[in-house]
Order: sequence, then structure tokens, then C-alpha cells
Amino acid sequence: MYELGVVHRRIDRTPSHLADALAHFGCATVHEAMGRVGLMQPTVRPIYAGAQVSGTAVTVLLQPGDNWMLHVAAEQIRPGDIVVAAVTAECSDGYFGDLLATSFQARGARALVIDAGVRDVRTLAEMRFPVWSKAISAKGTIKATLGSVNIPVVCAGALVHPGDVIVADDDGVVCVPRAMAQATLDAATEREAREADKRAKLAAGVLGLDMYAMREPLAKAGLRYLD
Amino acid sequence: MYELGVVHRRIDRTPSHLADALAHFGCATVHEAMGRVGLMQPTVRPIYAGAQVSGTAVTVLLQPGDNWMLHVAAEQIRPGDIVVAAVTAECSDGYFGDLLATSFQARGARALVIDAGVRDVRTLAEMRFPVWSKAISAKGTIKATLGSVNIPVVCAGALVHPGDVIVADDDGVVCVPRAMAQATLDAATEREAREADKRAKLAAGVLGLDMYAMREPLAKAGLRYLD
Amino acid sequence: MYELGVVHRRIDRTPSHLADALAHFGCATVHEAMGRVGLMQPTVRPIYAGAQVSGTAVTVLLQPGDNWMLHVAAEQIRPGDIVVAAVTAECSDGYFGDLLATSFQARGARALVIDAGVRDVRTLAEMRFPVWSKAISAKGTIKATLGSVNIPVVCAGALVHPGDVIVADDDGVVCVPRAMAQATLDAATEREAREADKRAKLAAGVLGLDMYAMREPLAKAGLRYLD
Amino acid sequence: MYELGVVHRRIDRTPSHLADALAHFGCATVHEAMGRVGLMQPTVRPIYAGAQVSGTAVTVLLQPGDNWMLHVAAEQIRPGDIVVAAVTAECSDGYFGDLLATSFQARGARALVIDAGVRDVRTLAEMRFPVWSKAISAKGTIKATLGSVNIPVVCAGALVHPGDVIVADDDGVVCVPRAMAQATLDAATEREAREADKRAKLAAGVLGLDMYAMREPLAKAGLRYLD
Amino acid sequence: MYELGVVHRRIDRTPSHLADALAHFGCATVHEAMGRVGLMQPTVRPIYAGAQVSGTAVTVLLQPGDNWMLHVAAEQIRPGDIVVAAVTAECSDGYFGDLLATSFQARGARALVIDAGVRDVRTLAEMRFPVWSKAISAKGTIKATLGSVNIPVVCAGALVHPGDVIVADDDGVVCVPRAMAQATLDAATEREAREADKRAKLAAGVLGLDMYAMREPLAKAGLRYLD
Amino acid sequence: MYELGVVHRRIDRTPSHLADALAHFGCATVHEAMGRVGLMQPTVRPIYAGAQVSGTAVTVLLQPGDNWMLHVAAEQIRPGDIVVAAVTAECSDGYFGDLLATSFQARGARALVIDAGVRDVRTLAEMRFPVWSKAISAKGTIKATLGSVNIPVVCAGALVHPGDVIVADDDGVVCVPRAMAQATLDAATEREAREADKRAKLAAGVLGLDMYAMREPLAKAGLRYLD
Repeated sequence: MYELGVVHRRIDRTPSHLADALAHFGCATVHEAMGRVGLMQPTVRPIYAGAQVSGTAVTVLLQPGDNWMLHVAAEQIRPGDIVVAAVTAECSDGYFGDLLATSFQARGARALVIDAGVRDVRTLAEMRFPVWSKAISAKGTIKATLGSVNIPVVCAGALVHPGDVIVADDDGVVCVPRAMAQATLDAATEREAREADKRAKLAAGVLGLDMYAMREPLAKAGLRYLD
Repeated sequence: MYELGVVHRRIDRTPSHLADALAHFGCATVHEAMGRVGLMQPTVRPIYAGAQVSGTAVTVLLQPGDNWMLHVAAEQIRPGDIVVAAVTAECSDGYFGDLLATSFQARGARALVIDAGVRDVRTLAEMRFPVWSKAISAKGTIKATLGSVNIPVVCAGALVHPGDVIVADDDGVVCVPRAMAQATLDAATEREAREADKRAKLAAGVLGLDMYAMREPLAKAGLRYLD
Repeated sequence: MYELGVVHRRIDRTPSHLADALAHFGCATVHEAMGRVGLMQPTVRPIYAGAQVSGTAVTVLLQPGDNWMLHVAAEQIRPGDIVVAAVTAECSDGYFGDLLATSFQARGARALVIDAGVRDVRTLAEMRFPVWSKAISAKGTIKATLGSVNIPVVCAGALVHPGDVIVADDDGVVCVPRAMAQATLDAATEREAREADKRAKLAAGVLGLDMYAMREPLAKAGLRYLD
Repeated sequence: MYELGVVHRRIDRTPSHLADALAHFGCATVHEAMGRVGLMQPTVRPIYAGAQVSGTAVTVLLQPGDNWMLHVAAEQIRPGDIVVAAVTAECSDGYFGDLLATSFQARGARALVIDAGVRDVRTLAEMRFPVWSKAISAKGTIKATLGSVNIPVVCAGALVHPGDVIVADDDGVVCVPRAMAQATLDAATEREAREADKRAKLAAGVLGLDMYAMREPLAKAGLRYLD
Repeated sequence: MYELGVVHRRIDRTPSHLADALAHFGCATVHEAMGRVGLMQPTVRPIYAGAQVSGTAVTVLLQPGDNWMLHVAAEQIRPGDIVVAAVTAECSDGYFGDLLATSFQARGARALVIDAGVRDVRTLAEMRFPVWSKAISAKGTIKATLGSVNIPVVCAGALVHPGDVIVADDDGVVCVPRAMAQATLDAATEREAREADKRAKLAAGVLGLDMYAMREPLAKAGLRYLD
Repeated sequence: MYELGVVHRRIDRTPSHLADALAHFGCATVHEAMGRVGLMQPTVRPIYAGAQVSGTAVTVLLQPGDNWMLHVAAEQIRPGDIVVAAVTAECSDGYFGDLLATSFQARGARALVIDAGVRDVRTLAEMRFPVWSKAISAKGTIKATLGSVNIPVVCAGALVHPGDVIVADDDGVVCVPRAMAQATLDAATEREAREADKRAKLAAGVLGLDMYAMREPLAKAGLRYLD
């Protein structure tokens, strides 16, 4: 957490068959499958709609107004990774633009999640390089102070270890710890199976009140119907 | 306002010929036609662009992090309704997703307006079920505490009674009390008629200064032109 | 800055060959070419994606909840101008809609930048009249108190003099003072030329660490690689 | 709610023995006694610490940047009233200062609650005229547009009818509808009696787990203790 | 505005008899005396209550997370100055603490106004060195990138030229341009004289409605009284 | 991080001679001594000025609007602890008041740090039980859903393990991991010793420019002085 000026070259990535499979379920289902934890704050939003990805985290700790470590991180990217960038203090500057995206994409990165700002967003959308950020800002950054790469970071309120799985879509971003990836995949698969049936019933006009057997607990809780 | 744990099954809906006709004018014109009142705060935004709807309000008062009452509300929906959901405290959780939307749509609801968060927004957009919310968040909710259905609620700063007309588009959301619906429709119709003529003049290069006869009042207020 | 109730009819516009040429480079590149100054705060956002414009500033100082001066400003617009509107206090009201946009467009304005709210945003998008604003709100405004037109204003944290160049795109808005327009254009041109080469290298897998010769300064700063 | 340009001179004030007695319990206890409803949003804060008041509401609906109606409201104040001011749109201007406070105090007002800004706060503190506001701002206001006095208003998310009881302290502001005042006073009295005993037990080291008999429901909910 | 890396050693300070005299009137009166312009945004707040100062501005433009220029500015301070610090991008870091305050105080500075964060606030209060800032944060800053000293800056939305008068109290901060100082002092003096009389009348129970002769304009605007 | 429904009864507290000694230095110095990491976001503020504490963390993960786990946590408190409470989603409700404070104080807790709201703040100040929170709100909470006690939590952006040292004062809150406590204490002691000397020099009029030998690096960076 607190190690500055280091780059961990070896990280334990979640096996790709797990990391890749989670994208399908999306952020909300994965978060439910984990027991409703691991979400980033909803201030981190996609720069364009419709992207849905998962991958293994390469983490970066940045200094305010300084994107030096993103260049250092680029070298640590392997195909299937998602870069997760935190900053040591609140900052909305544009840390990342089309040049870094070109580099990240060439290294095989699938996305960037950053608790700060990015720029060149039209070009990023044209490149189909998805980014989740908390701001869009043309403000440039310097390269003067060390942070770290591949240490545990807190990004938008979520703890992310290098190698964890990141799942991101229009609903937000969730982090699945490596040790929970298989169980989460199983739970998400089961949840999805149940949802298809529920959706059909609801579409046919069945009420959640009946499908979920809520009438009795509601009455016990004291709900009164008035005419 | 303050009744918890109740569901009012009978509400006085604004007649549908009024409720339906207001959609055409959009939120800004309706708000002007009402004398510039009744708007929700601009923090409530559409989850996708281009929807423009009106309908009769079914209201819900929710507890923080708890969406139980949305299931109770579903049963009270009639075709042409718009569900308006307030929370007893600030909360950005994702109270509503594709399953509830399927149920609401099956019941005939036209939209949801909620002073909290929603999720599954890509699916909601594909279903063309419009939602105005103040956040998008994958965070799930529980079902533990009673609120109420069809009591007057304050949603994003606007007082909404069950049966009032809700008009929503890309500019925001406005609530038209049932008793004002006819007068508002008349005023909006008149306003729109005047606007077409104004638009043509302005497009032809006529200045608002002249069209609205502003030069004299501006001079009286002391406006000076310098060269 | 502080003159209220005045309209300056004569302003020194940046020559159009400079003002027009800057649009091509976009906000981020122009801001970098100026030495990383002149940006408006990222709270000012485009109402629709994809617009990229430049033009000469006609400035307006508005009072809270009062859009009278926008009508006065319309008369001062010449083809190629961008209207830049500041308010004397924080306000999110909808100062500008489709009628004023029709008038501005008829006068030759290319865009509006406003540190407040606007409305009729769907129509504005259909008209292809781009607006950068800090809010979207249906709330109407009155016409009661004088501000000024074509005085220096602070808009979203940036000082704008009448006649300066405004460059705006999906990344935000930057103001280029008239006296810096030629130098900024030169620097932006040079910067863009360098970027094409860099992009190709990065796309080919060359690392920024090597392309920018960062390894030595990083080592000097104490960066350690751990396996 | 939606009537502009009117002043209701006759309002049904909650009897003073009820309105006055509620101050003693403070905002949190009163809000609990009402069933956890009626609170204003926590953005409305006292301008100085330590004031604790209750009184009957005289309500005002203001226009953005315009404090005309506060002068109109002054005439409607009777001893024991608290003025509650809402604005038709978000505004942080300084609507109220030491002159208006002198007038309000002379008329017998006990406090002001306003969903906007105030100024002269040092003098207000010296006068011991308590104010709950959402901003402190020196920005002056105009007197140009009508609002209303003594109509129902939504202030910081709470619906307030003229004559309701307002209770405010360092924890915030709560509105007790006239019809609920007696029941709320009874419930608050009972609650307070219970709390004294609880406080003594907790101070003696008894755990809430035991005092509230929480251990069994926690175990049923699945809580596990690990060593 | 846009010159980086420069220190202007010679600035035209407003004469001290003007700069000093304005403190007495406070921020709200001075702002009114200027015609309701020149205020900083209310996000800039005093770190402790009760300070009321005026002085001549020494301006600083800082980079995000970098306080180098505050050390450069210290040398330019003369007795009676107030340092006004802007940042090129949004930043809440703690740029200023007790050591810099000791230095500023030794040089004769009366206060700091900064559109960012400060720290050591308890010690600053004990030293009676008043600071207006938009955040309190322990986060330290680096010394790596040049800004400027004594160029015009935009601080919290207000344009400040070196040598302008700054007036600050619990209501906020206002900037009086050097050329307007005498006229503002005159207007503030006159305004204050009028206010004493008004205060006495209001305290005696005279209504603003009568004192300001508002009844007729209110009636003309259409105000209706209902019983 | 992600274990719900568990209470760890055994935690490795930082030795008290370290945990206690850090209070003296305050949040800013400790944060600098750690290399400028470990700070909570500045949104977490003291409810009254002047408290300065340190202690060992007992951590709590709460659900939105639900304070059940604070009662569970009370039993785990030992003298010298500071309770650190995170919530699984954004929430400003008043989770903690005078009754819980009485219990915490009886158990030996020195303070509460909570990324949510608290109430009864006047009583808490009278009890001298310091709290750092992000909101003050009278809104009550329920007891329905399990969180956890003494698992690692992210509180206001900082990762806190049970047993870590928390240092809090008017500047904010910092977390010192147990393994870094001795080194941080040493570095803070050294830093403080150096500061006394610096403070004396600065008070005598020596400039930071000279004391820190900044003139040469500033010149190298290109700083120009203009007369």
C-alpha cells in the first residue's frame, strides 16, 4: 500500500479463463455474486457508452498532476490486462490521452480505470479503447515524482491488488480478488441462470410480490393497504 | 407526506387525455406554462438521450439502500403511469435494474424517475425503458424496511402527489399537479404557437432586441453602448 | 472586468485565419501549445459529443437567473464568433434554448460557452449548434438586471477578453489570448507533427520509457524494480 | 405549492405550548419520534454552533438572486415564528444579513432556515440570531420578481406548511407537521425518558449488544466470531 | 495571465490609506459598494472565525500539488500585503502550513487567500495568521514546476491584479481593483452611514416594506394578500 | 477486505508506546514522515476544533443506513483504540450519537473516524469524545444487515488494517500501518527537531529561498525576475 518508488515486475495474475469469463456478466451481477462488495464509487464513469470488459489488474499509484508512472506501467502490461490507476490526492487532470492509449493497446491492455481525468476522449472512443475515469479534462500533467506500479492501491474507494480481476461496464467498475474469482464466476453463472426465468415471469405480468413471496413478510412488517 | 408503511390503492389520476398530451411540449415549455415552478433539480438526468414522455405519477417513498417498496409499487401501476421514487435520505445505490424494468413495463409503466441510483443501464436503454436518476451505480439494495406507496413525496426538490402529471425529457423533469393540468396544457399550446412565429423571425435575422421590444427598457435600465 | 451596464461594440477580434485554424488541433493540444494554461474548469461540458470548434469570443456577463444580456449580445455577434457567458454568481438555470440558438446561428455564431445551464438540448443537438455548459436545466430566466457585453470575463476559471480565440471539443474549452494566437498556432502545428511520429512508434510497440528516454531519470529519482 | 405572487396572512400555527416544548428534545430525537421522516438535507447547516430552537413556520418562496419576499415575510412574523425560505432554483447568494435579522428579531422571529446563502454572519452570531443555511456568501440580491409567503414549500428536501413546527440545532433541521405535533412531543418525551436509563447503563460498561438483546438476532443473521 | 516562470518585482500597490481603510467595512459592504462584482466564490472559507482584514495583493500562480512559488512569493511581500494564490488546476492539497506562515508573517503579510488547501490550521489560528482556503488537507506538496508571482490571476472566480485591494472576513473575499479603491471606499462609507439609521428603524419595528417603500411596486408586480 | 458477517476478536495492535507517541506530531507531520501517503480524503472533518489524538484501529464495515455493526464493534474496543468505520456505499446518515459515544468511551475508545454522518454533535463535544466524519446528520439508522468488525477497510480512500495507528487532528486523519509505526515515529521526531530551527530562522526574516537553497534550482528551471 505504502511503498513508493517501486515496480513489481512479477504479479500473480488471476488465470485468464476466469478473468476473461467474468466480462459476460457485467459489473452489477458480479458485484452481487461477491456479496455486494468490491465496487468502485459511481463517480468513476465510462467515457463512452457500451463497453463491457474484464481483465487482470496492473496497478499504478500516481502523484497529483504527474503521469510519469503510467509510462512505467506500460512496460508491465501483458495482453488481457486492465490498468487501474489511483492518485495520492484528489486530482482531475488529464493523465491519459491518445498516445498512451496507443501504447497501452499495443501492449495488449483492454482498458484503463483511473480515479482522475483523461483527455482525447473522442479519439479514445474511435480507437475503441475504453476508459473509466472520474473526469474529462484537457489539463496536461508533468513527469517529476515517483509513484509505484503493481502495489495494492485504493482506486475510487475499492482496494485493488495487482492480478485481481476488474469487471467494468456502463454500470461501473468492480474488483474481484484473485482468490474469489472462481467462486464469483460460479455464483454469477448461477445467478444469471435464475434471472432468465424470473425475467420471463415478470414480462408475463407476474408480480415480484408473488414471485419473491414478499406479501407475508411485508404484512409482518406492518404494511397496510388503504382504499 | 409522513405516513410510513402504507399503500394507497386508490389515487386520483389526472385524466389521460391531459396527461398524455403534455409529453409533446417537453419539460421546459411545460415548466414555463406553469409559471416557472414544479421542476425537479437538474441532478436528476436521463440515463439515455432522446426520451420524451409524460404520464401519471405513482409515488414511492424508499429507505436508504432498500428497494422493497418498488416491488410493492409495481402492483399499483396502471398503463400510462410513471413511477416517481424518493428516498428518506441521500443515497446513490442502484435501486432499479432490468428485472424491475421488465415488471414495470409489463404493468404499463412509461418511465421511472428516482432521486437515487439505477443499474443495468445498457439493458434499460435497449428495452427503451426511460429512467431519470441522479446516479448510475451497480450497488445492490436490500428489502428490510417499509416505506410507502402513493403518498405525497418530495423528489429532487419537487413535491409530487399521486396522480399528478410527470413530464420528462433531456432537459429534466417537471411535475404538473392534477388541478393545473388543463390550464398548463392550454398555456403550453398557446406558448408553442407563439414560438413557431418567433423562431421564423429569429432565423431570418430579426433580433430579439427588436422582436421583444427590449431596447427601451434596456436604455431605461441604463445600458450604455460604447464604440 | 468590473464595468456593469455597458456594451462594447468595437472589439479587436483575432484575425480569422488564426482563429479558424486552431479548431483543427483541439483543446488539449492547444492548451499544451500555450504552456498548459488557459483552460476552463472541466465542469464545463459539451451538451452533445463530437463537436470541435474555434472562433473569436464575444463575451457576456450575466446576472443569476437573468438572461437579458444574451439578447443584447446577439446583436454584437459576427460570423465566426463564439459567445462566452459568465455569471456574477453560481447559477445552474437554463439561460439559453432553441430560440436564442436560432438567433445566434442566424447571426453567424459557431457555439456558446456558458458557466451556467442551458435547455432544449435535444433541439440544439438537432440544429448542430454546439454548447458547452456546466448544467442542463429547464429552469427559465428573467430579464431584469443589467450585466455587460464585451468586457473581460472570468468563465469557469479562465479569463476571456473579447476577441480572444476559443477552442472547444469533447475534452473541454481553452481560451487563447489574441496576442498569443499566432505563436500558439505555430506551437500546435509543430506539436502535432511530432505526435504523428510518436504515435506510429508506440503503435509498433516501442515503449514511452525508451522513446522519451525516461529510464535514466527514473533511476536517478530512485525507482526500483523488484521481481 | 405552486401559487406565485400571494401572501397568506392567516395561517394555522401549531399551538405554542407544543411548538415551544419541542426545542428541548433537539432535531435527532424529534426526527426519531416522528418515525424518521421530516428531516431537511444535511447541507443546511447552522452558521454558529450551539443554538437549539423550535418555533412555528412562516414560509417564503424566493426567486434565484432575489430577496424581495423576505421583506414581505417580515410583516407576517409573529413572536415565536421561524422563517423557512426555499428558492425556485439552486442559488447560494447571500439573501439575508444583519438588517433583515434586526427586522425579523424585532418582529419576534426566533430563527431563519434558508436553502440558500446568508451574509453578515459574524454580526448575526453577535446578535444571537440563529440561521441554518446551505451557504455563506457576501453576494447581494435584487428585488424584482415575486415569490410567495405562507404557501407550502420544499426546503432542503422537506415539505413545510405554514404553521408547522421547526426544530433546529447543531444536528440539522426537522419539520413537524401541525397535526403530528402532540404525538411527536409525547413520543419524544417517552424516548428521552428511556435514554437516560440507557445512558447510565452504557456508561457503566454494559454493552448495547446485551442491553438491546442483539446477540441472538446477530447470530441468526449469521454473524461469526473468529479468534 | 498566461506568463509562466516570471516574478514581477515592481507592482503598483493601492495606496495604503485606501487599502487599510477598507477592512473596516467588511466583504459584503465593499462588494455592494462596487456594484455587486469582484467576489470570490463562497467555496473559499476562513480557517477560523472572526478575522477581518484588508491589504494589497501579491499574487501567485501555482501548479497542482506544488508550492514552490509560495517560497518565491515570500520575498516579494511587503508589510500590508495579502498573498492571493491560484492554481492552474483543481487541487485540494495542503500548500501552506505553519512554517510558511511564520515566514509570511515575518515579512509583514496580513493573510493568505488560496484556491486550494492548507494545513497546520490549529497553529495558524494560534498565530492569528488568517487564511481563506477552499480545503483543509494535511497532504504535502512538492517543489518541481514553475508558476509565476505578481501576474494577474483568477482566484476562486475573481480576477486579481497585483496591487489590488483584498477585503476578507467571515462572509468571504472580495477584490477591489486599484483604480476603483477610492470610489469604493467613498461608496462604502456612504452605505454604512445609511445603514446605521436603517438598523435603528428596523429594530424599532418599522418594516422594510415601509422603509424602502416597497408596497407600491409589489402591488404593481401583482402581489395579492389573502386572508 | 471482502469478508462479510465476521468479527475478528484477535487483532495485532501496534504497541501502545508507539501508537500513543504519534499523537504529539499531528496528522501533517506523520503523513510527511511516512513519505506522503496514508491520508484519508479531506472530506472527513472533525466535528469540533482542537482535538488531537492517536490510537490503534478497531475497524468496522457498515451497510448504508445501518449501524448494527457499531454495537458489535463496541465489545471489541480496548482502552487506547480508535474506531474506524467504512460503509459499503456512499451514505451521510447519522450512524453514531451520544449513546454509542457513552458506550465507546466507557470501553476506552479515544475517538471515532467514520466515512459517513454522525449526530448529537453538541453532546459529543461536551463529552470531549472526538469524531471525524464526512457529514453531520440527524438521520437515524436501522439494524438489519451484517457488515464486519476488524477486517481491513477502505475509509475515505485510505486502507486501514485492524491494529494500525490512526493519527487525527484539525488537519485530517492519517493511518500508519503497524509495521511502519516505529520508523514513522523516528522520522517524525527527526522532522520536528529540524522544524524548530527552521521556524526560528523564518521568524527572524530569513527567506525559505535562502534557507532551502532554492535560488539555483529556480534559476535552472528558468525563473526570470522582471522589474
